[in-house]
Amino acid sequence: MEKIAPAGLAEDFDLGKIGLVVEGTKDVRMVCAALDPTLKVVLGAASLGADMLVVHHTPLFTPVTRIVGTTARILKILLEHEINLFVMHTNFDHADGGINDAIADMLELSDRRRMSLGIIGDCHLSLTELIKRLGCGARVYGQVSGFQRVAVVGGSGFQPDLMEEACNLGADLFISSEMKHSTGRLAPLPCIEATHYALESVGMKAISEKMGWTFIDDPPESCLLI
Amino acid sequence: MEKIAPAGLAEDFDLGKIGLVVEGTKDVRMVCAALDPTLKVVLGAASLGADMLVVHHTPLFTPVTRIVGTTARILKILLEHEINLFVMHTNFDHADGGINDAIADMLELSDRRRMSLGIIGDCHLSLTELIKRLGCGARVYGQVSGFQRVAVVGGSGFQPDLMEEACNLGADLFISSEMKHSTGRLAPLPCIEATHYALESVGMKAISEKMGWTFIDDPPESCLLI
Amino acid sequence: MEKIAPAGLAEDFDLGKIGLVVEGTKDVRMVCAALDPTLKVVLGAASLGADMLVVHHTPLFTPVTRIVGTTARILKILLEHEINLFVMHTNFDHADGGINDAIADMLELSDRRRMSLGIIGDCHLSLTELIKRLGCGARVYGQVSGFQRVAVVGGSGFQPDLMEEACNLGADLFISSEMKHSTGRLAPLPCIEATHYALESVGMKAISEKMGWTFIDDPPESCLLI
Amino acid sequence: MEKIAPAGLAEDFDLGKIGLVVEGTKDVRMVCAALDPTLKVVLGAASLGADMLVVHHTPLFTPVTRIVGTTARILKILLEHEINLFVMHTNFDHADGGINDAIADMLELSDRRRMSLGIIGDCHLSLTELIKRLGCGARVYGQVSGFQRVAVVGGSGFQPDLMEEACNLGADLFISSEMKHSTGRLAPLPCIEATHYALESVGMKAISEKMGWTFIDDPPESCLLI
Amino acid sequence: MEKIAPAGLAEDFDLGKIGLVVEGTKDVRMVCAALDPTLKVVLGAASLGADMLVVHHTPLFTPVTRIVGTTARILKILLEHEINLFVMHTNFDHADGGINDAIADMLELSDRRRMSLGIIGDCHLSLTELIKRLGCGARVYGQVSGFQRVAVVGGSGFQPDLMEEACNLGADLFISSEMKHSTGRLAPLPCIEATHYALESVGMKAISEKMGWTFIDDPPESCLLI
Amino acid sequence: MEKIAPAGLAEDFDLGKIGLVVEGTKDVRMVCAALDPTLKVVLGAASLGADMLVVHHTPLFTPVTRIVGTTARILKILLEHEINLFVMHTNFDHADGGINDAIADMLELSDRRRMSLGIIGDCHLSLTELIKRLGCGARVYGQVSGFQRVAVVGGSGFQPDLMEEACNLGADLFISSEMKHSTGRLAPLPCIEATHYALESVGMKAISEKMGWTFIDDPPESCLLI
Repeated sequence: MEKIAPAGLAEDFDLGKIGLVVEGTKDVRMVCAALDPTLKVVLGAASLGADMLVVHHTPLFTPVTRIVGTTARILKILLEHEINLFVMHTNFDHADGGINDAIADMLELSDRRRMSLGIIGDCHLSLTELIKRLGCGARVYGQVSGFQRVAVVGGSGFQPDLMEEACNLGADLFISSEMKHSTGRLAPLPCIEATHYALESVGMKAISEKMGWTFIDDPPESCLLI
Repeated sequence: MEKIAPAGLAEDFDLGKIGLVVEGTKDVRMVCAALDPTLKVVLGAASLGADMLVVHHTPLFTPVTRIVGTTARILKILLEHEINLFVMHTNFDHADGGINDAIADMLELSDRRRMSLGIIGDCHLSLTELIKRLGCGARVYGQVSGFQRVAVVGGSGFQPDLMEEACNLGADLFISSEMKHSTGRLAPLPCIEATHYALESVGMKAISEKMGWTFIDDPPESCLLI
Repeated sequence: MEKIAPAGLAEDFDLGKIGLVVEGTKDVRMVCAALDPTLKVVLGAASLGADMLVVHHTPLFTPVTRIVGTTARILKILLEHEINLFVMHTNFDHADGGINDAIADMLELSDRRRMSLGIIGDCHLSLTELIKRLGCGARVYGQVSGFQRVAVVGGSGFQPDLMEEACNLGADLFISSEMKHSTGRLAPLPCIEATHYALESVGMKAISEKMGWTFIDDPPESCLLI
Repeated sequence: MEKIAPAGLAEDFDLGKIGLVVEGTKDVRMVCAALDPTLKVVLGAASLGADMLVVHHTPLFTPVTRIVGTTARILKILLEHEINLFVMHTNFDHADGGINDAIADMLELSDRRRMSLGIIGDCHLSLTELIKRLGCGARVYGQVSGFQRVAVVGGSGFQPDLMEEACNLGADLFISSEMKHSTGRLAPLPCIEATHYALESVGMKAISEKMGWTFIDDPPESCLLI
Repeated sequence: MEKIAPAGLAEDFDLGKIGLVVEGTKDVRMVCAALDPTLKVVLGAASLGADMLVVHHTPLFTPVTRIVGTTARILKILLEHEINLFVMHTNFDHADGGINDAIADMLELSDRRRMSLGIIGDCHLSLTELIKRLGCGARVYGQVSGFQRVAVVGGSGFQPDLMEEACNLGADLFISSEMKHSTGRLAPLPCIEATHYALESVGMKAISEKMGWTFIDDPPESCLLI
Repeated sequence: MEKIAPAGLAEDFDLGKIGLVVEGTKDVRMVCAALDPTLKVVLGAASLGADMLVVHHTPLFTPVTRIVGTTARILKILLEHEINLFVMHTNFDHADGGINDAIADMLELSDRRRMSLGIIGDCHLSLTELIKRLGCGARVYGQVSGFQRVAVVGGSGFQPDLMEEACNLGADLFISSEMKHSTGRLAPLPCIEATHYALESVGMKAISEKMGWTFIDDPPESCLLI
């Protein structure tokens, strides 16, 4: 696992929150993967006889002193079935072949360059095709009539310094999720706001295919109404 | 102004950031209002001969030691034209006749009750009509087949404790803006994510009509693509 | 449970660490109790078919972001058997009929008075009998030739301010556990250092008898060698 | 400007508080300088048609969330006239040819050596002449009958560690401003307390002459009465 | 002592730093007083056979973990001669008959009113006479041609909020010590900067006379040169 | 002294609390040593005419602003007799020939290896003989039937990470003092809890013999009762 997403690549706020987060059996044969360890996902992993579940988001990001509610139900299933829960978060964001490379592959970015977070590259898709690939519907900020060099950042990537960095690298479009009003007001380039799940699940799906893991898809139930 | 949005209603993080934020002329006759003091808005206020501009969001939320870039341009126009900038933020969110009352009016909520933030009430609009009223397109989370009691919260209101409170008060739909992935995963009821501007600008428009101020509309340029 | 150890009596550092700490079945019939939720204790509770285990010390005092090692094994057993884990800590120390009352009962203290923590009372036992009652062997600091008014504090009670308080209330002997060298040097009265388990387990045993719970004894394996 | 007072020489507490503090025109031809950007100074700069005003003390040392009172009046004049405000503070204290070199020049110090802050050198002036050069009157602490090696520190330089350093370097007189009672009590050598303005304005005057800037003098109105 | 300067009147930063600061004999007959416990003062107290020395400034304001240098020499003399060191600081500033009342007496202020710190009153002395009474020479800020209502604050009283308060109470002159350049620039009324010792020693002298203590005078060796 | 216990070896929490802690005469001829500077110890040092007292524990660990009670009595004797108080704490724990080497010598450990704190080595003593050497009676945790490789840590060494380190280095017994209940519950190997004094005084005794200092023994008055 260390090769896929070296722990040293993680941000400081992930300290103690990646790697083996729930300890199960020592004898790992069947591996599943998903973006989040939701109830549906862990039930699926259990029914598939998984010994390990690899996810992007830990269920214990905020340190806990109580195991109750949904957390208790999820941990019950994992511990009962001795399923190891393994988390790759910001270390997988930064890794070669990680979250952001998978987005870049999906959008066929060429001439890629790694930013401090995310990737920038040339995109030859039409806007219609690009939105179709994202698959979640999107909110577009600013004039996106034409674009060539596109920055993509999985997760909550609409940070002023990241957008600045993208501009300096020649980007004319910035794709990420969870835009804040105050940030959008000051955005220095056109932006496309997709969903967190649409952007990041492709990375878990891609690594699953590569490693022979079984990916369990569980997108939030959502749709756009205009 | 103290009657419209009493300073004592503001959250602690607004301390020193509401009320008179830029000092202009003592002689206030013509008043404009807007959601944000953008460059377009302050230019508009100046061209209208405004003596005061009332806004919801301060341009100086993060304390500054330098006046440069867009901030410098905005302050230049305000100071040059001696336009007072007056901020009503969380105090106007909580006020009677404030931001959340205006949203409730727009959605024709009846049998209203104030929550710790936002308002809950009965809504007899159809989903299609409700989305139309919001006017910004929206992302819907969960099954919104039917609803009766709707919670509305201007700004970034998708907070776990607020949603919990709404459930306890019988809500079957929660409307706010800026949903985070991790929060959406755990939402205890169906949600509609509108834009920050769509929800909050109605409050500034309503108070302007009531007070005889000139409202300057400046929505972010955005659209939904599916 | 709120009557036995009201949450409002807990120290600030116990915030979020008492009450229901691991959530199990809603249908509670059989209750066990112990001082610590050790592996031996939770296995015992499971084999007895317990629906709830009441303990003094939480296994999650330091907030966790990972469930591994002994913690994982303990939580596995609790969750698998749907055993609720209920913690009464400093709230039970302060409660009437709590930890310190049980110690006072064991040492037959009369004319009792509650201190800010612990209890002071008259003791008519001989030193030999007192040590026998404690049942763990003890280290005696200072001259304990005769004594009348004895202060008892369950847990790590050798705090300078508590010892000062005991002196002011006329104590001529102070009984607690986990004496530190620097504190012992400055102790203003003779002290008897028992074990944490010997002092506090009597409180859990006493409440179990009163409530009809099954107390599971699990003293640390230790002995004194001279 | 970077050559005159390299930003890297500034103390940590000046982070974000030096360099371009108020942004004006890009086209800088006429430059003024002063110690403080007082109302009198900025009015003077505006009437002289300045494009930039270089000062030692920022008007925004404490970060602000409101632009009111004197600050609003000063910023109004600067922004209205598009005068850039450029601050050189502790970076100019430490710079070659900076604040402390100018004091040393005024007192004709020879055989100079830079301290961690300030300069030490041989002084051949009489006490009377030295006081006359300072030009502000002065309070003398201790016996200043004769002296040879003099330490000078612009600003509030009566710090115990600086005075210690000066002693170790052989100083027999220490000149700075704003002596505190508790510090004076423990001063390890005779001291002369001049005014902050008298010591630091000479540095701004000297750099103005060198650079062809127009220095605007605005000493605080003060005098000594005995 | 509690009557002279009630501990409850002290500022928070004096917590643990007033009252009995060095413990000597229980049998107190001969009492000395001074502003600071300098080496000269404690030697004087010892030679006078003092059992207690009452001072305004503690020698242990910054908490210490080492007793060396001047501090060691002062403590040696105090402990050797069993002289109690008793500190009255901000509690004596605020007390009736305390530091600020003594200054007001010296300047013959009438119609007095207590400020949050310091006293304001009518003064009929000429400027020349006022300076003479202060006895230390003074630096005058602003135009002091005539004045009637004078605010006096012992210690470092040139605080913006205090000066504001004095203005609101009608003051046309503010007397204190240790003016900072940045504060002086914004002072809303004329100011006279005397020395800390000149202002505060009169309070210790006055209470000594009243209580029959022996006051030991030890002004810093200083003079003004123009 | 720097050779015996280099200051650079001390833990961060000892900053400013080791070395010369009370300053006495410059002329040091007669040196005493002890574990703690108790009243009995400093009186002994004074009666022996000591010029310096070397101890392991500073009397000023918590920074003080008042010199009262026992601290005042101890400092009085030291200052009166001009006895320098020199502290070697964690720097002496880590030093070659320091606290932990002395314990290892007492227990005849061979094939020694230094841990991050403490020493591990082979021990050929019987349990009975080992307890006898410790000389203070001891509480034994776990099964100590046989042992070979023993870790010793002076002071409060029962830290989870230290015990883990000892296990990894092959230890089958861990000797230190001041075991906490929660730590003992999770101890990964058998432990012997001796007294702080018994373990650490041997180090001060050993260095005294080596350096020709007079060691003053002052064990806490304590005994075990079973």
